[in-house]
Amino acid sequence: MPYCVGLMLDEGLVFMADTRTNAGVDHFSSTRKLFSFSIPGERFISIMTAGNLATTQSLISLLEERSKAADERDPTIMRAPSMFQVARLIGATLREVISESTAEGAESDAGFRASLIVGGQVKGGPPRLFMIYPEGNFVEATADSPFFQIGETKYGKPILVRTYAPKMSFGDAIKLLLVSFDSTVKANLSVGLPFDALIYETDSYDVRHRMRIEEDDPTYRLISDGWGDALRSAFDMLPPYKL
Amino acid sequence: MPYCVGLMLDEGLVFMADTRTNAGVDHFSSTRKLFSFSIPGERFISIMTAGNLATTQSLISLLEERSKAADERDPTIMRAPSMFQVARLIGATLREVISESTAEGAESDAGFRASLIVGGQVKGGPPRLFMIYPEGNFVEATADSPFFQIGETKYGKPILVRTYAPKMSFGDAIKLLLVSFDSTVKANLSVGLPFDALIYETDSYDVRHRMRIEEDDPTYRLISDGWGDALRSAFDMLPPYKL
Repeated sequence: MPYCVGLMLDEGLVFMADTRTNAGVDHFSSTRKLFSFSIPGERFISIMTAGNLATTQSLISLLEERSKAADERDPTIMRAPSMFQVARLIGATLREVISESTAEGAESDAGFRASLIVGGQVKGGPPRLFMIYPEGNFVEATADSPFFQIGETKYGKPILVRTYAPKMSFGDAIKLLLVSFDSTVKANLSVGLPFDALIYETDSYDVRHRMRIEEDDPTYRLISDGWGDALRSAFDMLPPYKL
Repeated sequence: MPYCVGLMLDEGLVFMADTRTNAGVDHFSSTRKLFSFSIPGERFISIMTAGNLATTQSLISLLEERSKAADERDPTIMRAPSMFQVARLIGATLREVISESTAEGAESDAGFRASLIVGGQVKGGPPRLFMIYPEGNFVEATADSPFFQIGETKYGKPILVRTYAPKMSFGDAIKLLLVSFDSTVKANLSVGLPFDALIYETDSYDVRHRMRIEEDDPTYRLISDGWGDALRSAFDMLPPYKL
């Protein structure tokens, strides 16, 4: 399973995804799960994928092809009038890919399912963040639930719940995500480095920062090693249970 | 799903289990999942259960009945010569209960499966800790994997991985488990207070402490509220990611 998180901040949107894919412990490799589309000055769309790799690769290829073909009757995510319509279009394309696989081949145990996090901004509207289900329907992030996780979500959730704040800076958000991803990597073999991250600043209609964070990234090393010590000293600050 | 953890320490064994059971969000109640059997001065056995409630209740009733009946041909956990034999007997009884349910009734989606953590000490041997699978087989804790979790294990694992040390005191172990359980409760509705805990000191052959920790337990409140602040200050100690 992958691990992807999309955060909504006051300043904009932050996305992070790991890159490990596996089909059993013998077959694992590294693949990108974070994609972006933009028309500078007009729109920016980012997509993160979790699930069957054949499904998610087909989805991204279809979205790319259709955004290049200039057929007026076939709406593309590069022309949809709002982020809501972008999410509907991506959801419909995902459902299309899954139903094609299911119709053509035998059913597989793991299924052809995939989930997505989609975020971005289309000029005229605010930045928006969605989680899209394999059925093609989706939910939107709100002030009450301002982030989405897909994939191997549980290990890294407690630190997000306790530490996330919408007013945090992009640098702190990346730090928070690194702690959340590091906790997951330490507990589960199916999530692995490098991590891809992308920062979108409101009204910029383009990527502000795109990073690939490798195992030997000096800040990641500081955070990964430092977090163990920081946790232990936080733990020591608490009173012991009196027996 | 429940959440239960058994820890092996230099000083002895520590067990903690939540008490929520649920079959859908409409049907939830509180039930004990931590049980103990002892012959003071001779043996102590603790059992924690996760899985189908009908299965785990039958298992505990069977173990209790058989430990009271005085039939020499029918070995009971109160007479088995070692913790290894205790674990084998409990595993066989678990398999028996599951196969009876499966033979008698229709198959249910969730199945009749259950997993157990069993720990204790029989005079003549050291304290030992086992995790027993629905098939009745089991694995034992070692210095390399000195704790077991069953049920909703993922949310609370990162803090255990980072902070557990075999030399920690019983009071620190209870504190660690409270942090791990609190992280789980904050992230998942199927795990709930009160928590049951039990401390076994090596060579005591009896319960040293048995606690039921309620929502309003003052130390639990300090730990639950304090952990959020401690995490945030630990987080602030780390360097931000330089963009």
